[in-house]
Amino acid sequence: MEKVYNYIELHQKKYLELLQRFLRQPSVSTTGLGMKEMVILLKETLVEMGFSIEEIATKGYPIIYGELAGEGRHTLTFYNHYDVQPIDPIEEWEVDPFSGTIKDGKIISRGAADNKGQLISRLCAIDAYLKTYGSLPLNIKVIYEGEEEVGSPHLSYFRKNYPDKLETDGIVWEGGERETKGPAHITLGVKGLTYVELRVRTANIDAHSCNAPIWPNAVWRLIWALNTLKNEKDEILIDGFYDEVVPPSEQDIEYLKNIPYNENEILSQMGMKGFINEVTGEELLKKYLYTPTCNICGIKGGYIEEGIKTVLPSYATAKLDFRLVPNMECKKIVKLLRKHLDKHGFSDVEIITMSGQPTFRSDYNNPLVNAAISASTEVYKFPPVIYPTDSGTMGVYQFCHGTEIPCVMYGVSNRFSQIHAPNENIFVEDYILGIKMTAALMDKFSSH
Amino acid sequence: MEKVYNYIELHQKKYLELLQRFLRQPSVSTTGLGMKEMVILLKETLVEMGFSIEEIATKGYPIIYGELAGEGRHTLTFYNHYDVQPIDPIEEWEVDPFSGTIKDGKIISRGAADNKGQLISRLCAIDAYLKTYGSLPLNIKVIYEGEEEVGSPHLSYFRKNYPDKLETDGIVWEGGERETKGPAHITLGVKGLTYVELRVRTANIDAHSCNAPIWPNAVWRLIWALNTLKNEKDEILIDGFYDEVVPPSEQDIEYLKNIPYNENEILSQMGMKGFINEVTGEELLKKYLYTPTCNICGIKGGYIEEGIKTVLPSYATAKLDFRLVPNMECKKIVKLLRKHLDKHGFSDVEIITMSGQPTFRSDYNNPLVNAAISASTEVYKFPPVIYPTDSGTMGVYQFCHGTEIPCVMYGVSNRFSQIHAPNENIFVEDYILGIKMTAALMDKFSSH
Repeated sequence: MEKVYNYIELHQKKYLELLQRFLRQPSVSTTGLGMKEMVILLKETLVEMGFSIEEIATKGYPIIYGELAGEGRHTLTFYNHYDVQPIDPIEEWEVDPFSGTIKDGKIISRGAADNKGQLISRLCAIDAYLKTYGSLPLNIKVIYEGEEEVGSPHLSYFRKNYPDKLETDGIVWEGGERETKGPAHITLGVKGLTYVELRVRTANIDAHSCNAPIWPNAVWRLIWALNTLKNEKDEILIDGFYDEVVPPSEQDIEYLKNIPYNENEILSQMGMKGFINEVTGEELLKKYLYTPTCNICGIKGGYIEEGIKTVLPSYATAKLDFRLVPNMECKKIVKLLRKHLDKHGFSDVEIITMSGQPTFRSDYNNPLVNAAISASTEVYKFPPVIYPTDSGTMGVYQFCHGTEIPCVMYGVSNRFSQIHAPNENIFVEDYILGIKMTAALMDKFSSH
Repeated sequence: MEKVYNYIELHQKKYLELLQRFLRQPSVSTTGLGMKEMVILLKETLVEMGFSIEEIATKGYPIIYGELAGEGRHTLTFYNHYDVQPIDPIEEWEVDPFSGTIKDGKIISRGAADNKGQLISRLCAIDAYLKTYGSLPLNIKVIYEGEEEVGSPHLSYFRKNYPDKLETDGIVWEGGERETKGPAHITLGVKGLTYVELRVRTANIDAHSCNAPIWPNAVWRLIWALNTLKNEKDEILIDGFYDEVVPPSEQDIEYLKNIPYNENEILSQMGMKGFINEVTGEELLKKYLYTPTCNICGIKGGYIEEGIKTVLPSYATAKLDFRLVPNMECKKIVKLLRKHLDKHGFSDVEIITMSGQPTFRSDYNNPLVNAAISASTEVYKFPPVIYPTDSGTMGVYQFCHGTEIPCVMYGVSNRFSQIHAPNENIFVEDYILGIKMTAALMDKFSSH
């Protein structure tokens, strides 16, 4: 692999310029800005590299699918997305967000971290491998989505209609972080998600609050209903909610020991007095990664403007997300919630299911995970930090849930990358290391 | 009094025209529309009738004060307001809202019921009495506010700085209703009000909901805090909340028997399934008028727009109004609330006091109340419906709380008057009867 690494180092300029070319092309899926041009640039780039490509139309932006045959029988798939978040608030940017600026060892632009830096670094790895050895050691598939930043509304359409394109021996998902000058993270799974809205209507219209002694109040009803779901100790009280939860294994716990989590820095940065139930250390990480949640994302009812209005609200809503751990089922949570509300006298509280995304976790001991660990250790000079699961939810379940296909996530960003925020950036060094990482992964995974 | 009644009937046209003149002059305190012109018109009208007047400047719109001396030693004060609500939604009006339209026996205009019909009917009564007898049987004071529709922010300034202008033997407040072709209402008091906002902050900024297992959620904190204040049986759980509440007297209960409250009609009109705790009949009215409340006017926290956002809210607020019955003190409620929240572990919930208005009730057996009952019975041909208290809160406490001055409220509107809404209206018949009512009240009150 030294040859490939050398090639990458010698051609840093070329690889940075390719990324800059992509960063300078806006591609904001929320507004549509530059999306058409981005699709053209992406297709041209893939074709130039020798990919056979297909533009898969959806009701939204197309999915760009590509294949590049290599030696051997293994196939590795890269999922990334070519869209980015909007740039507002624009006044907080230190540089033009679509300038591809390189300054003080950083690449600063919308999309540098999320997700163009990750996407292009992988293409550069393929390029370097090809240029060095003339052919790839395995077959590559790429799946590039244009709607990740708007919730991937058509990824399931792709999954259902193109099962052959999903056939693979392993998937590399979107991206990941590296500790400053330290080890890289490798993440092996995601939590699931059930997202619901609760709605209570007690009358046709709001009324004067002088009627409060005798007319029902929708906000009170909602509060009493919500209060039955979780207590102040953060215990979720829905019957059967925890029934399927498998406690973390020894290996799960073992991985926690290497996960960096600077409690004091986080508390001070966020202005928080403490963590829930004052948990700390390993218990904190255990709760963070391995427990399901019942979180209120938002609540609204009655008069919510400035000042005084004496009103009796007739309608109130709350949005809740439940993050799920392995073995929990999205739809079952809704059923348990309905049963719980009915049992506690809240049949009047309507449940609207807004999203359901299953969990996914790769087995620890599969060739892809082993190859990724080995590649990461070689490239970053530290064993990677293994996250058995992300704390969040990603579309990876679309490709992996219910299959034997393993998935790893790693990438070129860091925890100060300002993802979704102004001055999004990555280190040039991490970008180059990311190219090497993918090259090494292809090499190691091909020989399992 | 027959002579005065005859005069009123003979001069209906003149009195309707005077009201129309006032209705055609917009006076929207929220926007300022026509306020200056309204003040001029009001002052001119009073001077023309023989009042000596004073325009009392405030930081907002002026209070117009007037005196008209009469025979005898008694003084009666009329409080009304010359401002009206905005007219939107304008497209729902059947007529120009400032046209003073008379149609099918109704006067339809913004302010017809709230409060120009009531204000002008009282001036017409004075006019009719003067034209019939040459002089009034008592001294009259009028206090006309221009900011009632924006919360009377300067009424307390007036009270504190002009105590001599408040000296009187009785006050007639803003207005009141009449049953269709039936008895009129006379209201003898108001509930008090404590209005607070509760605020919870758990972090500087909202966070990704993947942190929900370990980071505090402001909305959950607020829900748990609110839940301790009142249970599903509508029992307010704040220690000491009910301590000062005096149970309704026999006379209080007696008055309930004549109060019309069409339960089924109200339920069907409002689309409600039932009243709180399924109370009905006398118990319903008892709860309605004689019990204090803890009402949530509004609640807000986290993501409140359409669709999905997986967020962990750092800030949440709720607005609460407590309607108070006699003997309860506005400020004490805030103290009890603070103590309660602290006791239940919610010292982090901040209380912002936004308004405090004491209760007020006239004694049943005072000359003003007796005169009003007698006048109402004579004019409407039915004994009036006595409301010992309104279910709401009004500025009348500013003039009466802590004094011996009695107050009555009656007027020319009805429960379909569409107060604050499009097509506000009163019956021509009720307007004329209202003039007679005030004339009779002056007469009867002067001779006590």
